[in-house]
Amino acid sequence: MTEVSKTASGRFFEDFQIGEVLRHATPRTIHSGDASLYSALFGTRFAVQSADTFAQGIGYAKAPIDDLLAFHIVFGKSVPDVSLNAIANLGYADGRFLEAVYPGDTLAATSEVIGLKENSNRQSGVVYVRTKGVNQHGRTVLEYARWVMVRKRDPAAKVSAAHVPDLPAAVAPADLGAACPPIDASAYDCGLSGSPYRWGDYDKGERIDHVDGVTVEEAEHMIATRLYQNTAKVHFNQFSEGQGRFGRRLIYGGHVISLARAESFNGLGNAFHIAAINAGRHVAPLFAGDTVFAWSEVLDKAALPGRDDVGALRLRLVAAKNRPCADFPFKAGDGYDPSVVLDFDHWALLPR
Amino acid sequence: MTEVSKTASGRFFEDFQIGEVLRHATPRTIHSGDASLYSALFGTRFAVQSADTFAQGIGYAKAPIDDLLAFHIVFGKSVPDVSLNAIANLGYADGRFLEAVYPGDTLAATSEVIGLKENSNRQSGVVYVRTKGVNQHGRTVLEYARWVMVRKRDPAAKVSAAHVPDLPAAVAPADLGAACPPIDASAYDCGLSGSPYRWGDYDKGERIDHVDGVTVEEAEHMIATRLYQNTAKVHFNQFSEGQGRFGRRLIYGGHVISLARAESFNGLGNAFHIAAINAGRHVAPLFAGDTVFAWSEVLDKAALPGRDDVGALRLRLVAAKNRPCADFPFKAGDGYDPSVVLDFDHWALLPR
Amino acid sequence: MTEVSKTASGRFFEDFQIGEVLRHATPRTIHSGDASLYSALFGTRFAVQSADTFAQGIGYAKAPIDDLLAFHIVFGKSVPDVSLNAIANLGYADGRFLEAVYPGDTLAATSEVIGLKENSNRQSGVVYVRTKGVNQHGRTVLEYARWVMVRKRDPAAKVSAAHVPDLPAAVAPADLGAACPPIDASAYDCGLSGSPYRWGDYDKGERIDHVDGVTVEEAEHMIATRLYQNTAKVHFNQFSEGQGRFGRRLIYGGHVISLARAESFNGLGNAFHIAAINAGRHVAPLFAGDTVFAWSEVLDKAALPGRDDVGALRLRLVAAKNRPCADFPFKAGDGYDPSVVLDFDHWALLPR
Repeated sequence: MTEVSKTASGRFFEDFQIGEVLRHATPRTIHSGDASLYSALFGTRFAVQSADTFAQGIGYAKAPIDDLLAFHIVFGKSVPDVSLNAIANLGYADGRFLEAVYPGDTLAATSEVIGLKENSNRQSGVVYVRTKGVNQHGRTVLEYARWVMVRKRDPAAKVSAAHVPDLPAAVAPADLGAACPPIDASAYDCGLSGSPYRWGDYDKGERIDHVDGVTVEEAEHMIATRLYQNTAKVHFNQFSEGQGRFGRRLIYGGHVISLARAESFNGLGNAFHIAAINAGRHVAPLFAGDTVFAWSEVLDKAALPGRDDVGALRLRLVAAKNRPCADFPFKAGDGYDPSVVLDFDHWALLPR
Repeated sequence: MTEVSKTASGRFFEDFQIGEVLRHATPRTIHSGDASLYSALFGTRFAVQSADTFAQGIGYAKAPIDDLLAFHIVFGKSVPDVSLNAIANLGYADGRFLEAVYPGDTLAATSEVIGLKENSNRQSGVVYVRTKGVNQHGRTVLEYARWVMVRKRDPAAKVSAAHVPDLPAAVAPADLGAACPPIDASAYDCGLSGSPYRWGDYDKGERIDHVDGVTVEEAEHMIATRLYQNTAKVHFNQFSEGQGRFGRRLIYGGHVISLARAESFNGLGNAFHIAAINAGRHVAPLFAGDTVFAWSEVLDKAALPGRDDVGALRLRLVAAKNRPCADFPFKAGDGYDPSVVLDFDHWALLPR
Repeated sequence: MTEVSKTASGRFFEDFQIGEVLRHATPRTIHSGDASLYSALFGTRFAVQSADTFAQGIGYAKAPIDDLLAFHIVFGKSVPDVSLNAIANLGYADGRFLEAVYPGDTLAATSEVIGLKENSNRQSGVVYVRTKGVNQHGRTVLEYARWVMVRKRDPAAKVSAAHVPDLPAAVAPADLGAACPPIDASAYDCGLSGSPYRWGDYDKGERIDHVDGVTVEEAEHMIATRLYQNTAKVHFNQFSEGQGRFGRRLIYGGHVISLARAESFNGLGNAFHIAAINAGRHVAPLFAGDTVFAWSEVLDKAALPGRDDVGALRLRLVAAKNRPCADFPFKAGDGYDPSVVLDFDHWALLPR
C-alpha cells in the first residue's frame, strides 16, 4: 500500500530555495467563452475588451481578453506550487503586461523564487516569487512579483539565510510593456466607449468615487476562482473553513480586484488597459454577502516614451466593503480604515 | 480637484428632450460562450437555437442566439443613458426582431426619446424611448419602445409639454421582421424539436400550463444581468437595497421573461422564434428565493403574407411566483392576481 | 379548448415497452464556452482537456471536452423521455466512451428500453435503458445503460412480464472505446500535467485520499444541470420540493460525479480520460451547503490490447459529504457509511 502518497500537499516554507524555478502545471487555452463568463461575473464594460469592432477600429487584432482575467489565470497556476499552504497573500509588485492575450491563446506559467524570510516565530516565513505567464509562442505575456506567508511543515527545520528582494515602488513609465499595441487614438470613439474623458482630462491628485456597489455571492466567487483553476482551499470548503479562523470561506483577493476594476469604469471608462501593477495589498478579507464599493486616486500621470497614442495614469484603486466611498476611505490611525479591503496601485493606459 | 465630476450619475427626467437620439456605449461582440451561459442560466431547449445542425437543416446559416439574449444585450446598453434613475420599468411595446443574430456579431444600440410626461407630483415623469440594436453591418436587428418612470433631479425644474406617443396595441402580422429566414418546414424535425405541435395545431383561446417551476438565486440573476452589461443598481447592491423599498435586490424584469419563455418550451416547443413584443408589463417584483411558474394563452393566430413556411401565434405569456399555474392566474379584481409578475404579449413563429 | 394537453408530462412506468427506441429531443452544439463553464463549475485541471497545445502535442486534434460534460449532455436529453417521473436514479453500467467530442460537435441521443420490472407494491417499477449519444457525423460517441425507478400513472395498469437485462459487472478492457486516440506518451509532459505518476506507478489495491473538499451552492448545481438541458424538476423547484420528501432541491447525481472527478486530479492527475463506467450508484442525496470530499481505490489494472501508449486503471471513486476521506469511508454494516453519496466504478486511462 502506498496510501496518500500520491496526493500533493503543496510546498512548505522550508521547501523553497532561492533561484529555484517552479514550472507550473495545467496550461490553459483561453476561449471566448472565458471572456463571456468573466463579463458575466464582473460586468466589465471597457469597449476594447467588449467588442471586436471597437478593438479592430483602433488597431488590435480583435478584442483582447481582460488583463485581469489573464492575470488570474497565470496566478491560479502558481497556487499549487507556491501558496497551497499559505496563511496570507501579502502583496504584489513589479507587475507588467507585456503582450495582449486573445481568445485562442494558451497560457502556461513559471515562478522563480526570488526571496525568503523566516518569521521570528519560526512557524512560517515569507516567500517571494516572480511569476511569468507564457503564451503558446513562448512569449511572456505578463509577469509580476508576489509574496506570501507560508507555513513551515516543521518549525524546527533549518532554513537558508533571509533574502528580501529589492522591488521597485512602482514600475517606471519607460518600463511598461507592449500589451497595448500602437492605437489610432483618433479612431477611439468616446461615444461608444462610454466616457468623454481622455488621458489629458485627468489631473494628478484627482479622486473619483465609482459610486456603484456590488454584493458578492458564494457561487460567484467560487465560479470565478475555479475559472482560473485556482485551487486554494480556503475559497471552496465551508466544512473546513467553518471551523477555521473566520468561520467561513474567504474570497480570492483577485476577485476584489476585478470587482473594483469593473466598478471603476464609472469615472475611468477610457482607462482600457492595465499596463502595470505597482503594488497591491489585500488589506482585509472579503466574505460572501459583503458589498464592494470602490474609488480611485490619480497618483501620477506619464506620457510614454515614443508614444503619442496613449498616456498612462498611475491609479490607486481602493475597495471598501459595506461602505459607500463618497468620502474616499483609506488610511485611519496607523493602518487602514476598517472598511478598506484592497489598496491597488497600478498604471492604466488611456487614449490621448 | 475635480472630485466626483467624472462619475456618470445618469439622466434625470428633466434632461430628456423629445426627438433626441442617445447613442449608447459599449458595443458587444456576442460569443458562442454567451449562448452557452444563457442556456445554463435558463435551460432553454428550442432546437433552432441549440444546434447548428438543426438550424442549418431548415435554412439558417447556423444556430442563432436566443432572441431574448439579443434583446437583453440591447436593453442593457440603454440603461446607463435611460434608466439609471428609473423608479420603475413600466412597459414595452412595438418590439420587432428584424434580423437573426449569430455568435460573432457585434451589437450596439441607440435610443430615440419619443415621449415625455411629467407626473402630477412633479417628482418624476415617464420617459418613452424607441431603442434599436444595430449589428456590425449597420443593420438594425431589433427595435422596441419602452417607457420608464424616471426621477427628477430637481422637482422644481421646468419640463417641456407632455407628449405621449401613439403605440400600437400589437404589431401587425404584416409588420413582423425578417429575423427568421425562409425555412424548409418539411425539414423541421418534430422528433428532434421535442414537440409534435405545429402552427396549425394551436387554436385561438387555447391556454397552456407550462407546469415546471424554477427557483431563482441571487447569483443567477446577477450573473445574467451582468452578462448583458446592464448596470441598473437595484439588481446588485444589497447594502443599498437592504435599506430601500423592498429590503433586498430586485431581479431584472428581463430575467423573468427569459425564465418564463424557457418554461414555455413545455407546451410550445416549436414556437422557436419571438417575432414581436406587442406589450410587456412587469406586474410585480421578483426576488431571489421565489419560484417562477408560467402559462400561455393563444390570443390570436396569423398566417404571414408571402410565407407558407411559418405561421404566427400571438401569445400572452404570464409568469406567477410561488404559485403553480394549472388554473391560469391572471387578473383579479381591478388588477392582477397577486402572484402574477409578468404579462408578456408577443408574436412567436412556428413551422407550418 | 384543449387546455393542458400540449404539456408533456413524461412517460410513466406502464408507458415503456421492451425494445422501444426513444429518440430524444434537442440536439446540442457544444461550444468552447461550454468547456469554459464546465471548468468554472468544477475546477477541472486535466491538461488534455485544458489546453489545445497539450492535447495536440500528444495526438489529439485539439483539446476534447471533458468526458463527463459529454455524458451529462447526453444524459440530459434522455430525461424528458425516461426519467421525468422518476423516483430515483438507481444505477449505471456498461458505459463506454467511443469517440472524442470536440467543441463544434453536435450531440443528439436515443435510448432503447432494455428492461422493465414492476415493483411489488405496483406503484412503480424499474426501467432499464441503453442510451447513446450520437454526433453530427452519425457516429456514437458514448453509450451506457442506466436504470431508474419510475412511477406508474395508474397502479392498476397491467404491465408486461418482468425482464432484467444482463449487464456486465465491468466493461472488459478489450471493449474500451476509441475516444482516446493513439497518443505519443513520450510527448506527455508530466511537469505540465501536474502529476509525476504514470500508469505503471499505480498498484492494485492502492487507495488515494483526494483531500480537497468543495461546498456546493444552489446556483452552481442549477446552472450546471441546465447547461446539460436536464429538466428533472427536483433540481430546480424549491416551491414544490420544499413540500416534498427532503424539504429542498435535490442535486443532480451527475454533479457529484463531476465534483469528485475534479477533486481526483489531486492524486490521479494523469488519469486524463474516463474510458468506461462500470457501475455507478448515487448512494445518498446531496444538498446545497454540503461539502463533497472524495477518495479512490485502484480496483484493477489492465494493459490494453494493441496499445502501448496508455494503460487502464479500474477505479472506485467514492464521494462523501461533510466528512474528510483520510480513512476512506465506504461500507458500514449492511450498507454504506452514512457520509457516502457516490460509488463510481470506472476505467480511466493514463499514459504509460
